[in-house]
Amino acid sequence: MYDGVIQDLIDELGQLPGIGPKSAQRIAFHLLDADPEDVRRFAATLVEVKAKVHFCSICGNVTVDTECRVCADPRRDLSVICVVEESKDVVAIERTREFRGRYHVLGGAISPIAGIGPDQLRIKELLQRLQDGVVTEVIIATDPNLEGEATATYLIRMLTPLGLRVSKLASGLPVGGDLEYADELTLGRAFEGRTTIGNAAVGG
Amino acid sequence: MYDGVIQDLIDELGQLPGIGPKSAQRIAFHLLDADPEDVRRFAATLVEVKAKVHFCSICGNVTVDTECRVCADPRRDLSVICVVEESKDVVAIERTREFRGRYHVLGGAISPIAGIGPDQLRIKELLQRLQDGVVTEVIIATDPNLEGEATATYLIRMLTPLGLRVSKLASGLPVGGDLEYADELTLGRAFEGRTTIGNAAVGG
Repeated sequence: MYDGVIQDLIDELGQLPGIGPKSAQRIAFHLLDADPEDVRRFAATLVEVKAKVHFCSICGNVTVDTECRVCADPRRDLSVICVVEESKDVVAIERTREFRGRYHVLGGAISPIAGIGPDQLRIKELLQRLQDGVVTEVIIATDPNLEGEATATYLIRMLTPLGLRVSKLASGLPVGGDLEYADELTLGRAFEGRTTIGNAAVGG
Repeated sequence: MYDGVIQDLIDELGQLPGIGPKSAQRIAFHLLDADPEDVRRFAATLVEVKAKVHFCSICGNVTVDTECRVCADPRRDLSVICVVEESKDVVAIERTREFRGRYHVLGGAISPIAGIGPDQLRIKELLQRLQDGVVTEVIIATDPNLEGEATATYLIRMLTPLGLRVSKLASGLPVGGDLEYADELTLGRAFEGRTTIGNAAVGG
């Protein structure tokens, strides 16, 4: 046990995700050694972020304005919406520079274990965005895990009757990986989704 | 890239030791979701810790008072000093409840690569503490690595002429480990430092 406020700091740090007691101690001592001005700025950023950040009124992405950077950009293609679970996913997809449409951030995935059903997600808001007929394609980009797949299945069932093009990100081998290390499920999906190259008439 | 202050927070978190970009992002979103009161308290703790914490005037341990908890405790044995590198080591040793003396925190270890020589450590302060003759034993508990061993060797050379008992923590097999997984150096040290049990007249 450390003296008063030092232990307080270690305890507070230890409550952050992925920070164990040893890391918390290490970070606390780093902060004790750090320039007081740096620590003050860090503290100020923490307070500021809570005061300023909220969700984009259109897509639900985190932002400091009323609309997020993507929704506020007039060059984005309004006819395509990519549905993701979290704001982090928006950043990951933006990094690929492959997508020029807008996003819709659900705020999670359907998970009966965590008690999250469709009503806890921003699905109503998605359906509202589709009502004016501007959007012609919805790309579902939920996580490739149990909850994400359940959410994708639910969304596909909701969206296909609306006469939109509904698509889902491809499953397959990660680029740069070794085939022999791929798990069976991924390898199976890679077979299912194989793309035909050349003229050979292969089914599937 | 996230909007303004969100990216600022991720960048600040990413500068902490052991926090990569992914963890920084994860912690940032955790804080965005957290109760504003919790985040404000965390920020206040950060500022408070910098304002309040300094080094014990006797041993160099971190404290919020002029003397640290150990040095201020009248029940501690004043005749033994345990020399450690960092305040973290004090906490680790206190946890064992094996040691009832006081500490001396060097503030690091001798490391030519990092440009840290004996003058950058609190060695002068240690020699001063030994002048009144109250201390009869110094236990050296530097880290069992290159820098720690170099520091221990230096201290032993400085302290033995003073006519004190100078000792060093035992090297050997970690309790609860598997012998076959011990590295050669540790296993070698465990042999060197083997303790005789029973009557057999074994040398060493």
